[in-house]
Amino acid sequence: MFPDQVTLVDVGPRDGLQNEKQPVSAAHKIELVHRLQAAGLREIEVTSFVSPKWVPQMADNAEVMVGLKRKPGVRYSVLVPNMKGLEAALPTRPDEIVVFGAASEAFSQRNINCSIEESIERFRPVAAAAREQGLKVRGAISCAVGCPYQGEVSADEVERVVRLMKDIGVQHVGVADTIGVGTPLKVRAAMERALRHYPLHEVSGHFHDTYGQAVGNIYACLEMGIHHFDTSVAGLGGCPYAKGATGNVATEDVVFLLQGLGIDCGVDLDALVDAGDFISRVLGRKPVSRAANALLAKRVREEAPA
Amino acid sequence: MFPDQVTLVDVGPRDGLQNEKQPVSAAHKIELVHRLQAAGLREIEVTSFVSPKWVPQMADNAEVMVGLKRKPGVRYSVLVPNMKGLEAALPTRPDEIVVFGAASEAFSQRNINCSIEESIERFRPVAAAAREQGLKVRGAISCAVGCPYQGEVSADEVERVVRLMKDIGVQHVGVADTIGVGTPLKVRAAMERALRHYPLHEVSGHFHDTYGQAVGNIYACLEMGIHHFDTSVAGLGGCPYAKGATGNVATEDVVFLLQGLGIDCGVDLDALVDAGDFISRVLGRKPVSRAANALLAKRVREEAPA
Repeated sequence: MFPDQVTLVDVGPRDGLQNEKQPVSAAHKIELVHRLQAAGLREIEVTSFVSPKWVPQMADNAEVMVGLKRKPGVRYSVLVPNMKGLEAALPTRPDEIVVFGAASEAFSQRNINCSIEESIERFRPVAAAAREQGLKVRGAISCAVGCPYQGEVSADEVERVVRLMKDIGVQHVGVADTIGVGTPLKVRAAMERALRHYPLHEVSGHFHDTYGQAVGNIYACLEMGIHHFDTSVAGLGGCPYAKGATGNVATEDVVFLLQGLGIDCGVDLDALVDAGDFISRVLGRKPVSRAANALLAKRVREEAPA
Repeated sequence: MFPDQVTLVDVGPRDGLQNEKQPVSAAHKIELVHRLQAAGLREIEVTSFVSPKWVPQMADNAEVMVGLKRKPGVRYSVLVPNMKGLEAALPTRPDEIVVFGAASEAFSQRNINCSIEESIERFRPVAAAAREQGLKVRGAISCAVGCPYQGEVSADEVERVVRLMKDIGVQHVGVADTIGVGTPLKVRAAMERALRHYPLHEVSGHFHDTYGQAVGNIYACLEMGIHHFDTSVAGLGGCPYAKGATGNVATEDVVFLLQGLGIDCGVDLDALVDAGDFISRVLGRKPVSRAANALLAKRVREEAPA
């Protein structure tokens, strides 16, 4: 029933750091990616090629990509918003690009000022060009179980975007609970719609832990056999819709779950906790991961003189 | 498959506040219980009748119990360690008493300096006397999926304590992951052993969120039909085995899960968040609940001038 293996995509360097207020140097970002790959992560979302006017945190995208000492077997992805972004990304040799669309019409209008359909259609030439260059194209579907503007989002709305993405040549879809309001039955309903159009190994889950539900949602997905998840080391990211609330689910918490279930994800939890501790110190705070803080506290206790 | 209704026992006033360093006045404890019952909690673990030499935080046990304005339909429980504790508790009219034992021999020896079997046997006259007075007797089984001293704890060890508790007349058993290391398959194995000796409605789960797994574990229990859980408002409690780590699962996070699954627990989440915010302010910190912090942040955002 459960998958034997799970692939985690650590989105901390991109989705995480993009939503952190504090700027992080390219050197620190590179160090973070190096630590993640050393810990065993096999996919890492490194940066985005979005205009620095909109996302100044990622202005060093090419510098970070080119500065990486790549590890064989690891895949490096980047987010691109349009053809210009793809053109800037190509010379930096990503393995995958991520395009995106919302399941919520209200979110699409407020966030990118166009309809869902228009937004996906704009990615058609981007997806075609990327595939021509041998890059894999992933599609991220935001607000798949709830929207900060319209509230409820139906499974029909999710399926609509899944179809649109399939139609433009997206090879893998990520169903994202952008605001962390999902619970297992809603998540399952959204996932089922993605699975009508994509095989099990081309569907992933992306959960935010804003309401403390992400680990439960991932468990419910594992029961469906889903075996790709986005996670963020040290819970990097926060929640842009609720200041002070939690964002991306922490990779550490998910690895703890998988280890407990006997599911291989190739990650060394201690090395991962070190990676999260490193970037959290750069940001001047504690990791936003319960497992990481528990393991760090345990280390302190074990290292203390008796 | 899922239960239609779930009963949550808020253990914040007892298990929670007992593990908080900062002393809380009897008046604030009473106010907390009042707010919990107003929010719809139907069972509340109020205090313990343990020697103040060991647990000074609960020295005001009788004062708190006697000071309550009870709400019809709500059950009030207290922890008692021995006959002396029961005798002190009886005049304060609890509805239930909680006795306890560990599934880990190492924990029993280190924590109460006797074997598991001896520790349960000592509760035999306590359980008998309580039942004679018309009180229900609950048994809490600590370290049911992991122990800070011996590490792994087997399902056989759990079943052994379940049998011992049944033998002395305990009417309801709570399977507790005291250090929060459980994941769904281990939790399920422990629960199955309890269900060999007790009916579904007399088995409850008590999960700590130390490694971020509690909500997932509760979801796995719901899939088994288990419908009693201990939770702690605002995540009161912390973890005595890992300073700075998270303790009891927050009631708010569990109510959010249940609402999402369409399972009734009778709790008004907004009123519950208020109760948690109240006691967190008394303690001078934020609630240790992701749902509570997200909802509080949302309030701030909605109340802000546009």
